Amino acid sequence: MITISEVGPRDGVQSLDFIVDIEVKKRWITAEAAAGVPEIEVGSFVNYKRLPQMQDTTALVKHALTLPGLAVAVLVPNLRGAQAAVEARAHKLSIPVSASETHSLRNVNRSHAQMIDEVAAIRALVDDLPTEARPSIEVGIATAFGCTIEGHVPQSTVTDLAERLMEAGADEVGLSDTTGYADPKMIRDRVRAVQTAIGARHITGVHLHNTRGLGLANALAALECGITTLDASLGGLGGCPFAPGASGNIVTEDLVYMLEAMGHSTGIDLPSLIAARKDLAEALTAARSDAPVYGFLADAGLPLHYTPPERAAQ
Amino acid sequence: MITISEVGPRDGVQSLDFIVDIEVKKRWITAEAAAGVPEIEVGSFVNYKRLPQMQDTTALVKHALTLPGLAVAVLVPNLRGAQAAVEARAHKLSIPVSASETHSLRNVNRSHAQMIDEVAAIRALVDDLPTEARPSIEVGIATAFGCTIEGHVPQSTVTDLAERLMEAGADEVGLSDTTGYADPKMIRDRVRAVQTAIGARHITGVHLHNTRGLGLANALAALECGITTLDASLGGLGGCPFAPGASGNIVTEDLVYMLEAMGHSTGIDLPSLIAARKDLAEALTAARSDAPVYGFLADAGLPLHYTPPERAAQ
Repeated sequence: MITISEVGPRDGVQSLDFIVDIEVKKRWITAEAAAGVPEIEVGSFVNYKRLPQMQDTTALVKHALTLPGLAVAVLVPNLRGAQAAVEARAHKLSIPVSASETHSLRNVNRSHAQMIDEVAAIRALVDDLPTEARPSIEVGIATAFGCTIEGHVPQSTVTDLAERLMEAGADEVGLSDTTGYADPKMIRDRVRAVQTAIGARHITGVHLHNTRGLGLANALAALECGITTLDASLGGLGGCPFAPGASGNIVTEDLVYMLEAMGHSTGIDLPSLIAARKDLAEALTAARSDAPVYGFLADAGLPLHYTPPERAAQ
Repeated sequence: MITISEVGPRDGVQSLDFIVDIEVKKRWITAEAAAGVPEIEVGSFVNYKRLPQMQDTTALVKHALTLPGLAVAVLVPNLRGAQAAVEARAHKLSIPVSASETHSLRNVNRSHAQMIDEVAAIRALVDDLPTEARPSIEVGIATAFGCTIEGHVPQSTVTDLAERLMEAGADEVGLSDTTGYADPKMIRDRVRAVQTAIGARHITGVHLHNTRGLGLANALAALECGITTLDASLGGLGGCPFAPGASGNIVTEDLVYMLEAMGHSTGIDLPSLIAARKDLAEALTAARSDAPVYGFLADAGLPLHYTPPERAAQ
């Protein structure tokens, strides 16, 4: 069983140059949950003046919590965001800590040491809650494969940071290829190094972009290392406005197709997912004709006589 | 060392709805050879009434033979095409034999038995030549992972065909994902099955399309099985006019980037390759504004501080 974590409503929309209506987001989240997507990152509790796209996060968490069986994740960059997430009763807090300190300072205005303090403070906040109300705390190490500002990011920076974040109280650490710099060898090397550093059960997920076309090859390399949670974005939303269609997250529907074709179970019904993607693409392109929706499966369709394989007992 | 075989001048242009000028093709071939691409399939000796795009193949072989160190490949569907290729002094004959017999009949108007006879006749033709003039004979098993007409193609059909083609005199058999139906598991299963059937040294290459976005993941799976030759098309040219941008071959520049980043040597200079791609894209879009040129690396650029890695001694 591979867990797909849809991050489109957060990572996918935050770089769009127009505000996506909350009703569009609600339909999107509802449709993906109905298709069997088990986890959705619905937004982030950030400074809305900086990211107005995210100002509906409380309402989206509330909506998502009504959908049966769905794990509701939110991004929180700091303690204040975590407090809002706890108040909204999100199931999972995702904290971005950038391996590139330059990127960390620009992204969340905090150094490594400050972010580690922030994670410790969030741990304390969560531990004060009754057990059943505690969200899980996952830190995503951003720019874990390289940085557009610093260039090369040493592997030891990533493993050291992973260790310190676990000590600070993270339940789990994931690796994010924020910049699309990863290749399959780098994925294997770094995932294995972090597994050695903090234990394989504390790194189950990766977050990949398809900036240089290597997204699904990187996902395959991650799977081979035992990664079981993959972030992705419906219609490959996300990425950089100055390289249209080229920099989004890996495409949820293409990823699910690859996994299911290989015999991995995702619990997701592909035709329903493709239908959800079609609705989303229509809503976004109605708002902006050049909305960066892309992907291959939706254009090409499923193979003739395709049936969900379950051909391997995985 | 991984061998990249550029198939754009053959597979990439044959589905275009406009004729690519021979001077554009010559510049394209010259530029890729200068960038270090070791093998180029420059055209095919087919019925030009059916495929007018290919009528300059003799002239292109002649041109390509002037480029130092370049292996010059051509597609030949039958003995008559092989005679033309031998006369033109091509280094390598690539014969498409479709695992789907329905597809074979539509594509080259011949059954499996007839194609096997054709391969035997081509073997006899080649063996009559002086040793130094003999081209190599590679059969590409088309629709080896499924067919848009027949749907599922049994693995045993592929391995049986591979055995019979070797018996008929092929030097090598490759597997082609003509329809973009392959996934990484299928690649591993079928490549290994054919390796077992005919010996690993007789299957060194695969031909992949990116129809459902899985092209580079499939290439990675093939590499892991010991495949050392990968077909690709500059700017991902190729594929289906009714699914624009969605059905081309795997993208040469994206593939080379993946391989080099992983530490595999290809002998190709990426900046020169990207420059060749830019020239080609300009020439094609000048002829037709919606020419199906795509790919990711060319839009995103190389990572900051990227240097050809050679970080692994491969």
